[in-house]
Amino acid sequence: MRLGTIGALLGWLFIFLSVALLIPIAFSIYYDDGNWRFFVISSTIGLSLGGGLAWSCVTEPEIGHREGFAIVGFSWLAAAALGALPYYLSGAIPSYLNAYFESMSGFTTTGSTILERVEVLGPSLLFWRAFTQWLGGMGIIVLSLAILPILGIGGMKLFQAEMPGPTKDRLAPRIQDTARILWSVYVLFTAVETVLLMFAGMSFFDAICHAFSSLATGGFSTRTESLAAFHNPWIDIIIIVFIILAGINFSLHYRLLSGNLKVFAQSEELRFYLGIGIFATILVMFVNILFGTYDSWSDSLRYGAFQVWSMLTTTGFGTADFDQWAPLCKFTLVALMCLGGMAGSTSGGIKQVRILMFWKFTRMQITKLIHPKAVEAIKLDNQKVPAEVIQSILGYLSLYMVVFVVATMIITGQGIDLITGSTAVIATLNNIGPGLGGVGPCHNFAGLPDLSKAVLIICMVAGRLELYTIAVLFVPRYWKDVRYPRWRWNKA
Amino acid sequence: MRLGTIGALLGWLFIFLSVALLIPIAFSIYYDDGNWRFFVISSTIGLSLGGGLAWSCVTEPEIGHREGFAIVGFSWLAAAALGALPYYLSGAIPSYLNAYFESMSGFTTTGSTILERVEVLGPSLLFWRAFTQWLGGMGIIVLSLAILPILGIGGMKLFQAEMPGPTKDRLAPRIQDTARILWSVYVLFTAVETVLLMFAGMSFFDAICHAFSSLATGGFSTRTESLAAFHNPWIDIIIIVFIILAGINFSLHYRLLSGNLKVFAQSEELRFYLGIGIFATILVMFVNILFGTYDSWSDSLRYGAFQVWSMLTTTGFGTADFDQWAPLCKFTLVALMCLGGMAGSTSGGIKQVRILMFWKFTRMQITKLIHPKAVEAIKLDNQKVPAEVIQSILGYLSLYMVVFVVATMIITGQGIDLITGSTAVIATLNNIGPGLGGVGPCHNFAGLPDLSKAVLIICMVAGRLELYTIAVLFVPRYWKDVRYPRWRWNKA
Repeated sequence: MRLGTIGALLGWLFIFLSVALLIPIAFSIYYDDGNWRFFVISSTIGLSLGGGLAWSCVTEPEIGHREGFAIVGFSWLAAAALGALPYYLSGAIPSYLNAYFESMSGFTTTGSTILERVEVLGPSLLFWRAFTQWLGGMGIIVLSLAILPILGIGGMKLFQAEMPGPTKDRLAPRIQDTARILWSVYVLFTAVETVLLMFAGMSFFDAICHAFSSLATGGFSTRTESLAAFHNPWIDIIIIVFIILAGINFSLHYRLLSGNLKVFAQSEELRFYLGIGIFATILVMFVNILFGTYDSWSDSLRYGAFQVWSMLTTTGFGTADFDQWAPLCKFTLVALMCLGGMAGSTSGGIKQVRILMFWKFTRMQITKLIHPKAVEAIKLDNQKVPAEVIQSILGYLSLYMVVFVVATMIITGQGIDLITGSTAVIATLNNIGPGLGGVGPCHNFAGLPDLSKAVLIICMVAGRLELYTIAVLFVPRYWKDVRYPRWRWNKA
Repeated sequence: MRLGTIGALLGWLFIFLSVALLIPIAFSIYYDDGNWRFFVISSTIGLSLGGGLAWSCVTEPEIGHREGFAIVGFSWLAAAALGALPYYLSGAIPSYLNAYFESMSGFTTTGSTILERVEVLGPSLLFWRAFTQWLGGMGIIVLSLAILPILGIGGMKLFQAEMPGPTKDRLAPRIQDTARILWSVYVLFTAVETVLLMFAGMSFFDAICHAFSSLATGGFSTRTESLAAFHNPWIDIIIIVFIILAGINFSLHYRLLSGNLKVFAQSEELRFYLGIGIFATILVMFVNILFGTYDSWSDSLRYGAFQVWSMLTTTGFGTADFDQWAPLCKFTLVALMCLGGMAGSTSGGIKQVRILMFWKFTRMQITKLIHPKAVEAIKLDNQKVPAEVIQSILGYLSLYMVVFVVATMIITGQGIDLITGSTAVIATLNNIGPGLGGVGPCHNFAGLPDLSKAVLIICMVAGRLELYTIAVLFVPRYWKDVRYPRWRWNKA
């Protein structure tokens, strides 16, 4: 464990974010909301800390497995700490814990908020809020498609086969190549969505903020009523299309854009993802008609489809208060929340590929009972899946259960009711945003006790970083042989 | 698949139950409740059907794997159908579906009831209700310790190593030997508990009924208020002790009674089971004081310990309305419901050994990330656990999730609220009895729609028979090559 390398990389992250912190200044000046100075201060703090770290820590030539986990885990914790400064310094969110919650909810593309009314933030802070989600989404794409496969995290190993294998010393250039390609898709989609939303009637400000938070499957809106505030079916449709795209593996998008049209037809995970979403849409549409929630089929389809895809892709945008829907709709939405989109997308949750493998594994176990001697391999996209990948996926699901139970116990232990407590954990662990009950779509997370908020912050990071990354940091053995940084001034 | 063998064995089961149906007649005559005639009729029906089946179906010399699943699955379905007759014929439960629900709740040792007030049944039917649980418990012990290991069901294979391995043709005598030994322990415990409960102040009738339903971890009481009706701390303590014993693997009991004192210390599963129970007891005791549910520590311990062990062993007796307890207590109880006691006990749930292996597996997956090359085997009681046993356990847990989600979807689809619907499934799938909300300890299952009741009946059987047994019956491939019975009259 080489702390020097970790320190230096975190320093560079701070420098990058300090530059990002300058962008909202343009909106602050244009809308004259007076918050520009807090961005300047935050950026200066970030630059000083980041520059100091990057300059003083000597990086080692080789980044190993173990450093990888620490870099990923601490990156999100540190980014959220810096990103919380504008909220806190401007006084818009007076408690730093709340500001950190909001910032972490941004960088993890969760979308849970502690704000009663988001409009109090003013344009530049609202932009920053959406921007943190967009940056978080960028981080996730690279993380899941370039970094996690190298670290060997549950199910993500599957992608390793799809790309030319990196050798250890060529790790950095490989990640950079992958990142450049994927980000170009991400930026392209953002631009297209912004333009389309403006055509549908949004201002540039609203359009870019919603494009940011929808492609990141984040869910932060510029309005307290979320997208319901716009009363515009075209906007709903555009958002549905782009969150569905955001829930798809970005390497599939890239390959499609490079002319490989067969890719979409070949991916079993994609078919599974679209199948579940379509099935749930039809189910919710019917049930909402049956229970009289909506009178017309078109309304039931519009609101049903929006909420289903918003939950399945773990975006968390709302056009309706689904806490008032029929029990089956609510249960379906909660179940969808846990599924999430495809691996390699910006969505959270367990991910479709894991659910699919899980299901294949279960089916195989039942078949084994009937034909004990039949040895069948589990296949995905017509390729055999190695046993260790399946084990890693099964381990992921059990870790997920453990985190869910422990987090819910701590939160209900503070007197929060069962539905609020358990869905708050589901909403943050899967990076969705709103839950049910006291944290439902028409409520917020401000009323929870501080300890609960802290636990939910951990849930957001843990869920975002595929659990294992954070779990590893809690194993004492991981911290053996820590090598403290060689400082630059000691170099000679 | 030889249907002849299955038919003949079900015939013998009916004959056995027809004899059992004569026992409540003694109580009917003693208490003069007039229900004796319905037991006579039920017994006659059972004897005719059973005798007819057993006489006409020609058994084949060999019982294979596949027949095993069908025999086990249909046994419970058929037993409940016959056991429902006295309730239905006497008019005490006017709907046959409700009577079947109550009967299945008995034979699966669940304890869920559709009765508003159980006292309306009268002594002989109340005795039959408790007796079905006791018989069900008997069936389960033999099933889990002698039959399932042979069928290779999830995690139960572990016990195969502990006993001299049966060869296929010696299957019947082996099961008989095991059954005789385990039943002697079961009968001994029942006798001791009955005597102790009488010493504590119960009538012989109440004592034997509660001994039956506590050793079966069933939970049917002779009073609507369950054990709360007796207001007797000694009774509470005796029941706690015996449900803890009932949650322990009966082969451990047998070995202990045969003088092998080390067995208790050697079993990892036993330590895990007791550890979880004690931890939960202390937690619930503290939380109930903290939230002011109870004023005195002794009350909090008494009611807390009772409810914790009642849920952990999936008995379902109540001495308090825990739906009124603090959220953490409720969540803990729901979590305990899913765990269940040890494998090889009469308790339901996932079983401690599976949870323990699950946890060890998860820990191993995390360690693997830190030391990718370290190959560690999972051990239980210092013995290596074969990979296929672990896979079977993981498959079990995923099957459990699938059944939970599908069942809850069907029930909430009928407009039942989330807490009631999901805890009704948990309460039946784990063979506990009461859930929360509309099926909480002070309510009953009568108000649910018929379809929901049918789904919950399937949950009871599926949970009781370790899911796989029932899941297999739904696989089309299982039903290939069905050999219809050779009837006796065609024999020549």
